[in-house]
Amino acid sequence: MTASWLDTIKWGQDGLVPVIAQEAGSGKVLMVAWMNREALAETARTRKAVYWSRSRKRLWRKGEESGHEQAVRDIYLDCDNDVLLLTVEQQGGIACHTGRYSCFFQQLQGDRWVVVEPVLKPATELYGKK
Amino acid sequence: MTASWLDTIKWGQDGLVPVIAQEAGSGKVLMVAWMNREALAETARTRKAVYWSRSRKRLWRKGEESGHEQAVRDIYLDCDNDVLLLTVEQQGGIACHTGRYSCFFQQLQGDRWVVVEPVLKPATELYGKK
Repeated sequence: MTASWLDTIKWGQDGLVPVIAQEAGSGKVLMVAWMNREALAETARTRKAVYWSRSRKRLWRKGEESGHEQAVRDIYLDCDNDVLLLTVEQQGGIACHTGRYSCFFQQLQGDRWVVVEPVLKPATELYGKK
Repeated sequence: MTASWLDTIKWGQDGLVPVIAQEAGSGKVLMVAWMNREALAETARTRKAVYWSRSRKRLWRKGEESGHEQAVRDIYLDCDNDVLLLTVEQQGGIACHTGRYSCFFQQLQGDRWVVVEPVLKPATELYGKK
């Protein structure tokens, strides 16, 4: 955890930076989550996405409950050194905890948010097993 | 500014949410910036990306200096209602203030960040004219 490439990143006051997960093949933006230093170090080492869960206040190994892991292909950092972009292969084709392909399933149409993606698997099924 | 679709969004304590700009054609993630309520309302009305500049503490009409506007095709909101995704047509093919196509031009290779995109136009040229 002393690697200098981790020091390049401008961690926020809470020690976190936002992370975009983008599907490597399709280019689809799947989700945005957060990482701290430990999460990024483990992600880079294991090539599986590990985030920091702000609600649960602990490391969140993506797919640990649902089985929907993200195999990390590449890791990018933006010009301000404070946002990460991962290209990933999404296991199971479901990134969102609602059971949808992507978390960005609400589209602004006129003055309404319209759900434009179907639920592929109900959340009860996603988290009921294991 | 009283539109209820704006109330759906969980604005942060600072009144902001992160916004991803993705190129509509290529699917390339261009940049991440921030919006407040006013910025999003203007973006939706004008279909040109307007952000909130945290450094300058004012509305930032993307391209106001560089001419590199972003024509907004669609606006998406994530499952937690706290991150926006815009699909845009990037004028000039340069989204980054460094004169690169995208802001995510640093790729992790081993334990080093390597610049993997060329400067298409020097920043002095981007901001020298108007």
